[in-house]
Amino acid sequence: MINDQNFIKIPDVPGPTKEEIRCLVICKSSVKSEDVVVDIGCGTGGLTVEFAKRAKTVYSIDLNHKAVETTIKNLEKHHVKENVEVIEGDGLNILDKLENFDILVIGGSSGKLPLIIKKGYEKLNNGGRIIVTAILLETSLEAVNTLKDLYLIPDVVNVAISKGETTERGTMMLARNPITIISAKKDI
Amino acid sequence: MINDQNFIKIPDVPGPTKEEIRCLVICKSSVKSEDVVVDIGCGTGGLTVEFAKRAKTVYSIDLNHKAVETTIKNLEKHHVKENVEVIEGDGLNILDKLENFDILVIGGSSGKLPLIIKKGYEKLNNGGRIIVTAILLETSLEAVNTLKDLYLIPDVVNVAISKGETTERGTMMLARNPITIISAKKDI
Amino acid sequence: MINDQNFIKIPDVPGPTKEEIRCLVICKSSVKSEDVVVDIGCGTGGLTVEFAKRAKTVYSIDLNHKAVETTIKNLEKHHVKENVEVIEGDGLNILDKLENFDILVIGGSSGKLPLIIKKGYEKLNNGGRIIVTAILLETSLEAVNTLKDLYLIPDVVNVAISKGETTERGTMMLARNPITIISAKKDI
Amino acid sequence: MINDQNFIKIPDVPGPTKEEIRCLVICKSSVKSEDVVVDIGCGTGGLTVEFAKRAKTVYSIDLNHKAVETTIKNLEKHHVKENVEVIEGDGLNILDKLENFDILVIGGSSGKLPLIIKKGYEKLNNGGRIIVTAILLETSLEAVNTLKDLYLIPDVVNVAISKGETTERGTMMLARNPITIISAKKDI
Repeated sequence: MINDQNFIKIPDVPGPTKEEIRCLVICKSSVKSEDVVVDIGCGTGGLTVEFAKRAKTVYSIDLNHKAVETTIKNLEKHHVKENVEVIEGDGLNILDKLENFDILVIGGSSGKLPLIIKKGYEKLNNGGRIIVTAILLETSLEAVNTLKDLYLIPDVVNVAISKGETTERGTMMLARNPITIISAKKDI
Repeated sequence: MINDQNFIKIPDVPGPTKEEIRCLVICKSSVKSEDVVVDIGCGTGGLTVEFAKRAKTVYSIDLNHKAVETTIKNLEKHHVKENVEVIEGDGLNILDKLENFDILVIGGSSGKLPLIIKKGYEKLNNGGRIIVTAILLETSLEAVNTLKDLYLIPDVVNVAISKGETTERGTMMLARNPITIISAKKDI
Repeated sequence: MINDQNFIKIPDVPGPTKEEIRCLVICKSSVKSEDVVVDIGCGTGGLTVEFAKRAKTVYSIDLNHKAVETTIKNLEKHHVKENVEVIEGDGLNILDKLENFDILVIGGSSGKLPLIIKKGYEKLNNGGRIIVTAILLETSLEAVNTLKDLYLIPDVVNVAISKGETTERGTMMLARNPITIISAKKDI
Repeated sequence: MINDQNFIKIPDVPGPTKEEIRCLVICKSSVKSEDVVVDIGCGTGGLTVEFAKRAKTVYSIDLNHKAVETTIKNLEKHHVKENVEVIEGDGLNILDKLENFDILVIGGSSGKLPLIIKKGYEKLNNGGRIIVTAILLETSLEAVNTLKDLYLIPDVVNVAISKGETTERGTMMLARNPITIISAKKDI
């Protein structure tokens, strides 16, 4: 995994998704080199970069112009621009225009999470996965409920990480905000 | 418990100990109205104020002049100055000069934790308690080991709190740094 | 606080609420000796016993006959039966028949949490508090949303405790299931 | 990652390391297909199986005969026996006899962690990594201190996972015991 410090970061754009969370999302996705990935709400591009290194193609989407710019800069910095298309726009609309894919990662949904999950599920190849990362209680539950509506059994993992910072006085444990990762596999 | 926001706070002084941690320390202490409490490394005075409201007398100690000043200001703000003596100085030295007490709380120890615990244990009335709050891995283990050296069975609780912040988008869970509370009762 | 081990416990009844959670609920309640407390979904009676020691009167309610029996046994064991009425029945119905009170604690709600909170809020004396302890994502959010519907600002605390168990090999950290404590004060 | 349920498990052998922890250990290791991995204290073989799928060769060591047997069974079950040598014996002694390697994972050390780390560091190829998974406070700190003695900067991550279990009543969050992952890279 890339170190958190190795991403270009700007104040108005959330992220990058922290190293340990990127790691867990990658694991939950079971990404393979022939996969097509869609990353909605890509923010700083942390997950986009990681998927770009592992998948065939990544479509990375954000409403926020600065997020799109930052994601492109991070793709350039990590030399993985070739197989990524970064798109500024509404995730739901853009999903509509995309061909089928294997992995859908949702880090931001502008209040349209259920619709994005449902539309995404239609376009998901069999064996593919949907992964939602949630920092809000509401998002966690919306993801769980929408996946259940689709007769999927969500895997729900709340991850509370604290990292040891070495100081003169000792190893200080500093908490990261907890993230809930909700995921499911299309298996029909 | 007093809200975190209701303490006067200055940049160079750690604290106040967060509401939930103050609550757990108070519970672990089993403080009663006739108790004498010693608070070493009082910082902003969060725990000092809480004990002042519940105990007979509190001796509150910090090496840092600004911590002593801030603790006094917080005692004044919360109208509990009468039964507290705030002392600037080295916890270990001052322990030496104090009469016996019922509760010893250690939030900072300037590298002398084992000595402070051992000296404190000598001066602890039977039935009394020692409580250490640790943000460092090293402090947690030093507290555990010193209490074991004294043939005490430490109660060790790692507390990871996250608080929900109500935002427009929903309830964002924000982590507080984890604290380990190590405590033991003198029971001879 | 009473040690977890000091409660009578039977297999079919959840609880007792763990020591640290009881402690935090008591703190969040700001219980005073003149208060009337209602405990809905009392289970093993852990919180009932703690409130019985601190409040004027406690009404303790559970649908489950065995929970009612176990709560009574724990009240007897801890010699705090006098100021508690343990009632078998549906929390919502029983709330209807009670006089006003100062503290409403909800640990179980049989799917009627919003109704219980709303009915409880009506009967809550000004300055009183509602406290929900949730082990389900759904309950956390239902509590948050219902309190917001009442124009209250919920205090939301997710508590992840791990306890150190002293073994031959060292101090093993054992996790307790995380609990979310949602609370609010009536302040009109 | 393999599901936790897909490992053969026996009562006397710890493990398997849970899915999310296996995932994080794999990420921290930066394992590549040409790497040689040593897994000391392999237990049920969870990490051994994961490394076997990603590395060139794995040496998997445990003092416990039943652990060795279980690891072999899990390698067979997951069809990755070919590139793994499972060795019953003392990790420190066996390290001595092995050629250099790229990744050293330590999940159990029978009280010899500092010696194992130091010996392992000698035999670690440059660019390689040492990863310790700790469930004891003592192990965490011993790992941190030994790595510092070697002038390495340890990456310390405490991971508290809770998993959502879908029940009739809702999504119950069930905690896993927290694990601390301490790792460092040899970079001379």
